[in-house]
Amino acid sequence: MSKTITDPVLHAKRMQAIKAHVDKRIANAQEDKGTFVLLTGNGKGKSSSALGMVARALGHNMKVGVVQFLKGEWNTGEIDFFKKQDGVQWEIMPAGFTWETQNRESDIASSQQAWEKAKAMLSNSGMDLVVLDELTYLLHYEYLNEGDVLNAIMNRPDNQHLVVTGRGASDAFIELADTVSEIKEIKHAFKRGIKAQKGLEF
Amino acid sequence: MSKTITDPVLHAKRMQAIKAHVDKRIANAQEDKGTFVLLTGNGKGKSSSALGMVARALGHNMKVGVVQFLKGEWNTGEIDFFKKQDGVQWEIMPAGFTWETQNRESDIASSQQAWEKAKAMLSNSGMDLVVLDELTYLLHYEYLNEGDVLNAIMNRPDNQHLVVTGRGASDAFIELADTVSEIKEIKHAFKRGIKAQKGLEF
Repeated sequence: MSKTITDPVLHAKRMQAIKAHVDKRIANAQEDKGTFVLLTGNGKGKSSSALGMVARALGHNMKVGVVQFLKGEWNTGEIDFFKKQDGVQWEIMPAGFTWETQNRESDIASSQQAWEKAKAMLSNSGMDLVVLDELTYLLHYEYLNEGDVLNAIMNRPDNQHLVVTGRGASDAFIELADTVSEIKEIKHAFKRGIKAQKGLEF
Repeated sequence: MSKTITDPVLHAKRMQAIKAHVDKRIANAQEDKGTFVLLTGNGKGKSSSALGMVARALGHNMKVGVVQFLKGEWNTGEIDFFKKQDGVQWEIMPAGFTWETQNRESDIASSQQAWEKAKAMLSNSGMDLVVLDELTYLLHYEYLNEGDVLNAIMNRPDNQHLVVTGRGASDAFIELADTVSEIKEIKHAFKRGIKAQKGLEF
């Protein structure tokens, strides 16, 4: 589901801006440098991995901000667990977006609300790590403007780490990220008739 | 670095035992069923992902056991973080194994010690989730007997979840696991001159 923007001039301009940004980063690479990790692909483990990095960061007494897009009202173990930890701001996209509703207007409104929370984190130099869980879906469906999102990422504080998860990351995201892992599904328990498991999937 | 055991008769016998075990699991698949998740591949995110599942499970008040192979004396954010949580038993392979020592005898002794902790967890029905982080390396280097490890996994309590991480999982592991994700490295920040980052890598 990877896609690029349709206007070729705009696309070329965006990719140039990203390249300039990356070149500058490489030239200035130092020991402590906010790193952008992108976890994409169709396999199990993307969000879990981001959550593991949250735990690591909290173990170092870093300040962490998380926005979970697409979770809606779904209650998960990670929300119960991390909400009671110190040092973390946890935001969940307001109810409204589900795969079922298919109501583009309310989906866009929910997406924007969640994105405002994310943008505030990305401009807060007190945040050591920001996790934007499942962000790529909103870009794929054009619920958010990709240019706005890329700009906020490029302009974030120098030492702020960022982890973005979700399938189908765009070429621009892959280019901009420092570390990109593709999580490939080799097989999934669902295909053995085993349902989503508490503690593993949610 | 995937490998299979060299004796073809032993290998065929082992694969048959695994197939019989898997067939039985599929026949008995129910709602709550201990699931074996294998996270392999050369990309960043395997151990982080396992840690995220630990957080989820603790959020559901499940009991969790973790054995970190290969960590030695390395201090990490996850150890500081999870050791102060309730409901988790955290074990680290005793110092001795490092990539530098290359002392096969002491490495085997350390591996065995860590494996004994893992085996105790795998036979403890009070453990809801067991994580064996970087286990595959010890099998690859034959510091542990693969048949023993596979048997302990197959004979663990019915409702116990298991997550194994590490590069180069063997065919037998891939066959036995319910969910397998391969984490592929698309690119890594190290190649941009950025060192391992606190909160992300450790």
